[in-house]
Amino acid sequence: MKPLILISNDDGYQAKGLLVLTGIARQLGNVVVMSTELNASAKSMSLTTNMPLRARLIEKVEDTEELGSVEVYASNGTPTDNIKLAVEHFCSSRPDLVVSGINHGSNASINVLYSGTLGAALEAAISGYPAIGFSILDPIPEPDFSYCEPYVELIMRLSLEKGLEKGLCLNVNFPYTQLGPIKGMKVCRASKAEWTDSYQKRLDPMSKPYYWLTGKFECTDNDEGTDQWALANGYASIVPLRPDYTAFDAIDAINNMIL
Amino acid sequence: MKPLILISNDDGYQAKGLLVLTGIARQLGNVVVMSTELNASAKSMSLTTNMPLRARLIEKVEDTEELGSVEVYASNGTPTDNIKLAVEHFCSSRPDLVVSGINHGSNASINVLYSGTLGAALEAAISGYPAIGFSILDPIPEPDFSYCEPYVELIMRLSLEKGLEKGLCLNVNFPYTQLGPIKGMKVCRASKAEWTDSYQKRLDPMSKPYYWLTGKFECTDNDEGTDQWALANGYASIVPLRPDYTAFDAIDAINNMIL
Repeated sequence: MKPLILISNDDGYQAKGLLVLTGIARQLGNVVVMSTELNASAKSMSLTTNMPLRARLIEKVEDTEELGSVEVYASNGTPTDNIKLAVEHFCSSRPDLVVSGINHGSNASINVLYSGTLGAALEAAISGYPAIGFSILDPIPEPDFSYCEPYVELIMRLSLEKGLEKGLCLNVNFPYTQLGPIKGMKVCRASKAEWTDSYQKRLDPMSKPYYWLTGKFECTDNDEGTDQWALANGYASIVPLRPDYTAFDAIDAINNMIL
Repeated sequence: MKPLILISNDDGYQAKGLLVLTGIARQLGNVVVMSTELNASAKSMSLTTNMPLRARLIEKVEDTEELGSVEVYASNGTPTDNIKLAVEHFCSSRPDLVVSGINHGSNASINVLYSGTLGAALEAAISGYPAIGFSILDPIPEPDFSYCEPYVELIMRLSLEKGLEKGLCLNVNFPYTQLGPIKGMKVCRASKAEWTDSYQKRLDPMSKPYYWLTGKFECTDNDEGTDQWALANGYASIVPLRPDYTAFDAIDAINNMIL
């Protein structure tokens, strides 16, 4: 019995990164893809509360001796919606692994907080599924995934074989392809950073202002041991994530503050 | 010179919780409110990438000897957008404190991950502002805020006077008003939990399926020391949050897995 792998992303069902990830997943098991009709980047862990969801079958491929079956759906939901929806209504059994991506653009450092791709992986972790978010730093439609493909396969295979601690997911980022072959993998913490110069103000033809999201990524937390260091030095970064913001080390200080 | 307090929420600019919070904030400083035109619950830390933002002045009130000035704006952005937008284009100086809420409904336990109200507070924390998200468990339009008002004032005043460690924010939840007067405050960790039975399947008049978000909150992590325990026992819960999902204690295990 082949394992069941559930795939999601936030770049939409036609994104190259999703197709690459699906191709690798078929070598390891049967696959259900629940993607988005449109780009849903920066949706974080948002949920759709004000309208119902629809899901449309895009493609169905039977399994062969070598390759698992594939069912691809696209929905109008967010990536986090899509994990909930797929597990409950579109997977024939409990997934053995949930993967999201391969995202076109960095989800390292604080980008993980805004990412829809990682929103899907974190949702899967909350429900106790081994989960991995994959991203490549090149934010273009057609990056060269050939350097990262063996690593994606390896990390997925190890996660299927060895499992992950319940409630954890992995945030895997691959360096810019211009750096050449990947040097290896580093398990890291997320760099602290900030996006500044967030909004560009423009005037419409009626001279009324509107504001476009933009922003400059500012990160001075680049020590060895961070994901930004690993990626800048040609390594894939793997950050274990737990969907819990509690700052345990600050509980005493806040207790002192309110007393 | 009065301190500047920036306020946001996810229930929209007409929500009672926002009006209550604004009233308290005026006792402590000058206030800028950047809220949403419509309800933006469960928007997490999502950003608006596919369209520009607009912000509309709703109300402007001059300051008096006792009360600070108020400027209220409503935008088409998410709560996280609104913090970025307000700081950069609508605040005359760097805010001394950012508060979000008072949300109508719980943001304790894992609800914090999906919450737009806390998305705003976490965004402020990333940018180094002392930030607090406030929520009351009653998810109704007109809860009785009278029990929680003195606590909101106290926590805001202490945060202004003593500051917060850079990068931290506080997630403050108040118990159901049916429990009567609040017994005090407990500094807690977030309970682990899960929402199950996520989507209700229905058929439209053409017999095609659609899916409504629903869900059952399942939490067995109710020990003393958790926010769910505090709230169930009549206390306000205060969880210090840090916008970093890194599971530091899992780095060694993942290193062993991939070697």
